[in-house]
Amino acid sequence: MANSSTLPYSKLLVRCSVAYDKDGSGAVRRVNGAAAAVQVGETAASMKRSLAGRLMSAGPVVVEEEGSRRKNMIPREKQTVDPFRQAVIVEGGVRYRQTVVVRSYEVGADRTATLETLLSLLQETALNHVWMSGLLGDGFGATHGMIRNNLIWVVSRMHVQVDHYPIWGEVLEIDTWVGSTWVMMNKATRRLSKMPEEVRDEISPWFIDRHAIEEEATDKIIKLDRNATYVDSDLKPKRSDLDMNHHVNNVKYVRWMLETLPDQFLQQHHLSSIILEYRKECGSSDVVQSICQPDEDTIMPGENVSMVMGPSLSPEIINGHHSLAGALQQWPTKYTHLLQLKANGKYDEIVRGRTTWKKKTYQKS
Amino acid sequence: MANSSTLPYSKLLVRCSVAYDKDGSGAVRRVNGAAAAVQVGETAASMKRSLAGRLMSAGPVVVEEEGSRRKNMIPREKQTVDPFRQAVIVEGGVRYRQTVVVRSYEVGADRTATLETLLSLLQETALNHVWMSGLLGDGFGATHGMIRNNLIWVVSRMHVQVDHYPIWGEVLEIDTWVGSTWVMMNKATRRLSKMPEEVRDEISPWFIDRHAIEEEATDKIIKLDRNATYVDSDLKPKRSDLDMNHHVNNVKYVRWMLETLPDQFLQQHHLSSIILEYRKECGSSDVVQSICQPDEDTIMPGENVSMVMGPSLSPEIINGHHSLAGALQQWPTKYTHLLQLKANGKYDEIVRGRTTWKKKTYQKS
Repeated sequence: MANSSTLPYSKLLVRCSVAYDKDGSGAVRRVNGAAAAVQVGETAASMKRSLAGRLMSAGPVVVEEEGSRRKNMIPREKQTVDPFRQAVIVEGGVRYRQTVVVRSYEVGADRTATLETLLSLLQETALNHVWMSGLLGDGFGATHGMIRNNLIWVVSRMHVQVDHYPIWGEVLEIDTWVGSTWVMMNKATRRLSKMPEEVRDEISPWFIDRHAIEEEATDKIIKLDRNATYVDSDLKPKRSDLDMNHHVNNVKYVRWMLETLPDQFLQQHHLSSIILEYRKECGSSDVVQSICQPDEDTIMPGENVSMVMGPSLSPEIINGHHSLAGALQQWPTKYTHLLQLKANGKYDEIVRGRTTWKKKTYQKS
Repeated sequence: MANSSTLPYSKLLVRCSVAYDKDGSGAVRRVNGAAAAVQVGETAASMKRSLAGRLMSAGPVVVEEEGSRRKNMIPREKQTVDPFRQAVIVEGGVRYRQTVVVRSYEVGADRTATLETLLSLLQETALNHVWMSGLLGDGFGATHGMIRNNLIWVVSRMHVQVDHYPIWGEVLEIDTWVGSTWVMMNKATRRLSKMPEEVRDEISPWFIDRHAIEEEATDKIIKLDRNATYVDSDLKPKRSDLDMNHHVNNVKYVRWMLETLPDQFLQQHHLSSIILEYRKECGSSDVVQSICQPDEDTIMPGENVSMVMGPSLSPEIINGHHSLAGALQQWPTKYTHLLQLKANGKYDEIVRGRTTWKKKTYQKS
């Protein structure tokens, strides 16, 4: 996997590539990201230097009170350091680097950071990069020029690859940068839009040609139907699942997708790669169906189950709740996913997904 | 509200008081916490000094690899600064202070931090305080002496009061400290335990007598029955709702409680106070019921609804989905809550709650 990245990190944990587009009809904005663990023993010194460097700026976060409403003052000029977020701009601004520590509530029952946490942190740092650029006009990364043209970003595709899951208390350094292809959507008409000249002028200085994941020729994800192996219906978003744009947040999509898989599979495996292809927005009143189909030909060769299934074991041990049969069951390692919503008697696709899984070597869940 | 706190902050956002006990049969450990906004204009200088002070220590977070399992090395000696978590020990160790910035995904549709975020951050900082004390033996705050005696903490009561909800990008300084009354439970028998001498010796140097909330004589929360106004049944925890101890996390409890309230109420109000009394643990296979009853005598006097209900408005406007009647409806401001689980044909209480709400002055949701 090391050769799939052009980053200088010795120990990469997470890589991410996000394309903001819908169907290829426009240019695509690509945000890449990667999280690497900071080994304290080796890097404490450089960490101190880096922190010291951050003290040269007051940081961009200011809150004003406007009547009873609190209002944040987003900087309109480029910032170089954010001591509060422990972030620095590197390579003249085209790259943003933030240090975070995995929190106690960001890990799951197995004490490693959840996929949701990783996705959220990658979104957070990309947004903070725009914040520090001085271009940010609103909460979801739209620039001043985009707001004047009533444009918003739309995510079309995301690919996250997890090499290692960081543990509770681990220090992460997250790098994020922006690729050279972009697109946006009109907020009112919900149609894709060409990039206006003024927006191109704003953002073109930020492009760099570097990828977190060197993607092979990407196959389109096939569309599942309701004859798939796993189907969860009547999924309803809660208020707490909505983001600042009043859409169901990306983390909830992923949760709906993965929770369709059997518990026993989820206990024994962790996700090593997820690709998402977005088709349609999902609002607060939609009712969602999550469908999942394994690639049956991806069952890993494993232990010889029949060897331990001798007559000396009772049926309870073999087939009980925490049974040997369950523990030894061989699961497929690749799955296709579909989230869809019911509208006017038919189903509309929200997002297609592909996941790849690895057997956990250490299980504590 | 300002006089309910003994803290020196000019602008307190959140106060919290947590008691670790079950039924008063033992001493109670009390963890207090408070979050205050840092006003960058005034405090950038002290912030810089504070950050500079942190550079004197390498910070306690180290990760080791043990086979394929990542392992964090929790410090066994008292630390004074944690540059990675932006935290300092103050007042000789009895108080812990951490600076955090509200992240993009920690705010809800109204762009202020969710209650879940605040609760999680208060838990996180209390745990980080134990981490820096050198006493931490495992993930949920148990000391080395507690682990030798197979003891864990149990939360019995929590009171959180929110004066202001911080917004996206706001810098928070969270203080946490430990009161003078404690108790714990045997991990195997699940029964409350006296504090062993060796554990008392470990933790007694950390007590201070200070409270985030000066509580009035606390009435016991009444037990609701199933004739209450709002009832949600068949609530099932997901894998992602479990914490490191494989119990449903506290944030999920609160979410179940609050989501029982009508959407329209939640859109127009924010929670200003929540008290939780814990009765029983909830595991991954339990099925939960959430019950809620308003105090009908707490309806706030408001606008005169009949004034605008004249014949010039169509019935759709008055009674439609986003109707005037809904917007003008006067809601009670105090609610009693109960979460219970069904076991052996009867219901067992998990947690009782009391919430107090305020009408939002600015609505964007």
